[in-house]
Amino acid sequence: MSTTTETIRNGVDTAQLYGTLDAIKADPELARFQFRARNRWIEGAHNRTTIRDFYAAKQEDTSRAGEFVIDAGEPAILLGSDTGPNPAEYLLHALAACLTTSIVYIAAARGVHLTEVESTLEGDMDVQGALGLSDDYRNGFEQIRVSFRIAGDAPAEKLREIVDRAQRRSAVFDMVAHGVPVTVDATVA
Amino acid sequence: MSTTTETIRNGVDTAQLYGTLDAIKADPELARFQFRARNRWIEGAHNRTTIRDFYAAKQEDTSRAGEFVIDAGEPAILLGSDTGPNPAEYLLHALAACLTTSIVYIAAARGVHLTEVESTLEGDMDVQGALGLSDDYRNGFEQIRVSFRIAGDAPAEKLREIVDRAQRRSAVFDMVAHGVPVTVDATVA
Repeated sequence: MSTTTETIRNGVDTAQLYGTLDAIKADPELARFQFRARNRWIEGAHNRTTIRDFYAAKQEDTSRAGEFVIDAGEPAILLGSDTGPNPAEYLLHALAACLTTSIVYIAAARGVHLTEVESTLEGDMDVQGALGLSDDYRNGFEQIRVSFRIAGDAPAEKLREIVDRAQRRSAVFDMVAHGVPVTVDATVA
Repeated sequence: MSTTTETIRNGVDTAQLYGTLDAIKADPELARFQFRARNRWIEGAHNRTTIRDFYAAKQEDTSRAGEFVIDAGEPAILLGSDTGPNPAEYLLHALAACLTTSIVYIAAARGVHLTEVESTLEGDMDVQGALGLSDDYRNGFEQIRVSFRIAGDAPAEKLREIVDRAQRRSAVFDMVAHGVPVTVDATVA
């Protein structure tokens, strides 16, 4: 009889995961990434982002079959026509997606099979800030609440530890919770 | 002869914009908003957010005809199968979309007709942080660069002022540049 070793766990190829970690330990320059987005205004609150190319592992990545196209908008009460979620909602999505993927990858690395990961996010905003009506309110959310529901073949305590670890390693959680230096420049066409 | 007053500018109904500002000045409670997102893990790096309901102007908004569905993923080098842009790319999209809409609304309010607003965004990341390999690198982007190209019927200096003002009032710019308090809790199912 032979012994088989599971490599795909939670849809994550753990052999590839450990291989990637080993390769970066041997050559940390492989860890330098640059992600990009290009946005074009269409009309009113409607604008569109295209995403495809990025830099990783010492080269321009060419693995993607096509570009992703994402439309943003605003609801009627914010003078739009619902051409897409609004930018603040996209930020909640980015946060949810990053925490979730972090949970799934960490669980895979720790040998935990997950059966469910769901989350609800809420962000509170007083729009007097963004509308320029008052300096007593910030422009963005005052706070964001994230509530996960998680299930898998590990004790509750271990599942909670995985959520904690994901929070400590999520790229988007880090950015949203702590901020990032952003430079904005403009060329007049 | 009659005089007509332009109300739609850059696709923004400026009469509605001024009416909204006046209504909030008269009753600031109208400015309390809450946005939401719900995310569900599918497999590996693939997860899906649905967005529809939100709270605004003292009530649950019911104006949206349906829900928005957004899929996230990772490219092959990050152990995914490109089921969507990755979470960090979505954060760049949220930032681009919010700055762009802010530019368009501010221009409309100031009587400037825009003909072009485009932007490219880049975020630099050393994934040794998010992968848990080193504490010398943060998990998120070290920095984000946003480059706008803008054109319209105003002098270059005025167009640049509009971009500056948008940066000072954008909800997502505020959150990404300065951070937001985020709470994460988990229920084990």
